[in-house]
Amino acid sequence: MSVPDLEPYLGVAVLLADTARPILQKYYRSGVGIEDKPDATPVTIADRAAEAAMRQLINQHCPGHGIKGEEYGDENLAGDFVWVLDPIDGTKAFMTGKPLFGTLIALCYQGRPVIGIIDMAVLAERFVGVRGRGASRNGVPIKTRACAHLSQAALYATTPYMFTGAAAANFNNLALNVKYPLFGADCYGYGLVASGFADLVVEAQLKPYDYLACAVVVTEAGGVAVDWHGRDLTLASGDQVVVSGDARLVPPVLALLNR
Amino acid sequence: MSVPDLEPYLGVAVLLADTARPILQKYYRSGVGIEDKPDATPVTIADRAAEAAMRQLINQHCPGHGIKGEEYGDENLAGDFVWVLDPIDGTKAFMTGKPLFGTLIALCYQGRPVIGIIDMAVLAERFVGVRGRGASRNGVPIKTRACAHLSQAALYATTPYMFTGAAAANFNNLALNVKYPLFGADCYGYGLVASGFADLVVEAQLKPYDYLACAVVVTEAGGVAVDWHGRDLTLASGDQVVVSGDARLVPPVLALLNR
Repeated sequence: MSVPDLEPYLGVAVLLADTARPILQKYYRSGVGIEDKPDATPVTIADRAAEAAMRQLINQHCPGHGIKGEEYGDENLAGDFVWVLDPIDGTKAFMTGKPLFGTLIALCYQGRPVIGIIDMAVLAERFVGVRGRGASRNGVPIKTRACAHLSQAALYATTPYMFTGAAAANFNNLALNVKYPLFGADCYGYGLVASGFADLVVEAQLKPYDYLACAVVVTEAGGVAVDWHGRDLTLASGDQVVVSGDARLVPPVLALLNR
Repeated sequence: MSVPDLEPYLGVAVLLADTARPILQKYYRSGVGIEDKPDATPVTIADRAAEAAMRQLINQHCPGHGIKGEEYGDENLAGDFVWVLDPIDGTKAFMTGKPLFGTLIALCYQGRPVIGIIDMAVLAERFVGVRGRGASRNGVPIKTRACAHLSQAALYATTPYMFTGAAAANFNNLALNVKYPLFGADCYGYGLVASGFADLVVEAQLKPYDYLACAVVVTEAGGVAVDWHGRDLTLASGDQVVVSGDARLVPPVLALLNR
C-alpha cells in the first residue's frame, strides 16, 4: 500500500486530541451523586461533547473524509480516508474515578490505520503512532521490549468477563501460561506494551474504534497487532485482538486462543 | 477502646509517606530492559529502600513502637502501638509501568488500626484516615456514597485470580450480581470507595499490611471494612476483606461470599 503524505493529517489528529482532553478533564469526577440517568451522566455528556467537537474539526479541516465514531455513528465512508473515534475508551474507569481511560483517534487509509493516538487525559500521557514514522509517548520515541517466551510475559486484558464460551476457557489457559496475567488497563495497556513496560494485550468484544488507534501505536513501536487469526487489523476486522511487543509471542498466543 | 491522642503519630505517618513517595517515583519505569533478577529489579530495590527508610524514621520518632513490614518482617510487637507497612502495594502494576500502586501505612493501637494512609506516588494522591477524625484525599474531606442495592454497585478487585476454590465461585457469583465488576486497582480501589466513586472492594489472599491502612481510610469516610465473616479488621485478621461505602451492601455481599 502506498500512503499519501500524512503530515497534514497528523496535525489534525493532534488537534483532535488537544480538543478532547480538556472536555474529559472537565467532567472527570464531576457530578458524583447525580442520579444515574443514562442520557445525563457525566460520562455520557463528556463522551458526546468530545466526539461532537472532534467531528466538527474533521469536517472543517478534512472535508470529504469519512468518520466512524462510537457515539454518532458513520458518515461519508466512501472515500479513501476514514477517521475512527472513541472519545472515552474505558467508560467504567471514567465513571469510577480511575484515570486509566483515554481518547482513541485513528485515521484509516483504504481501510488500514495509518495514524493512531491514545490520549490519557488525566494521566497527561499521549501515545502517537504514524505509519512508517515510529511511535512516541509525549514526544519521546518508544519501542516495545523483547520477550521470547510466554512464561516471561506480562499480559493485560481489561476484564476476564470480556471472554465468553470457548474464548473464556482459552483466555484462561493463556493467562495460566504467562508470568503475570493483569487486568483493568483499558487502552492504557496498549500504551504500556508500546512503551516496553508490558508484553501482551489480548481482548475480545471490541469494536474497530477500540483498537485501530492502538494498533498503529504498537506496530510503529516495533510490535504486532492482529486479530485472533493473525490477520492485520483493519476497519473490517472483528472483535478479537492480540497485541504483542515481541513477534515471537504471537504464534504461541494464537495457538492457545484457537484450541 | 479508648485511644490516646493520635496527633503526634499522624505527623510521623505523614513523614513516612513523604519519605516513601520520592523513592517510588525514582525507581518507577526505571531500569527497563535490565535482566529480571529477583533481588535486583527496580521494584525490589524501591520496595526495600522505602521500607528501610520508613523503619528508621519510626525507630527515631517512636522508639518502642512495633513494626510489621512486608520486606523486613516483625520487630518489637509486644507494645500497644504497631506500625504496619507495605512500601509498594501493587508491585505488578509498578513493574509494568501502571501508576495504580501505592504505599500503605497503618498505625495499630492494641491490634486495631487507628491511622491509615494510602499514598499514590505517581498519581500524587494521598488518602488519610484517622480514627474519630474522618478521612481526606489530598487534605480535602471525603465521604463514601450511598448505594442501597447490589445491582447498582461498582465492585473492584485486583484480579479474579486472587480467589480459589469455593471463594472463586462465590466471588464470580457476586460479580454477576453487581452493576460493574471491575479489576486492576490494587490499593487505589479502597481510595475510590472512600471517595464515593465506587461502592465495593472484595479481595482475598491478602496480608494485614494490604488492608489495615485502607480499612481506616474507608471507615473514617463513612464506610465499612470487615472480613468475609463481618468482623472488624485487626492485626490478627485473615486474608479475606470486604469494603463497602454503604453498610447496607454488606449483608448481601457476605451472604453471597459464604454460600
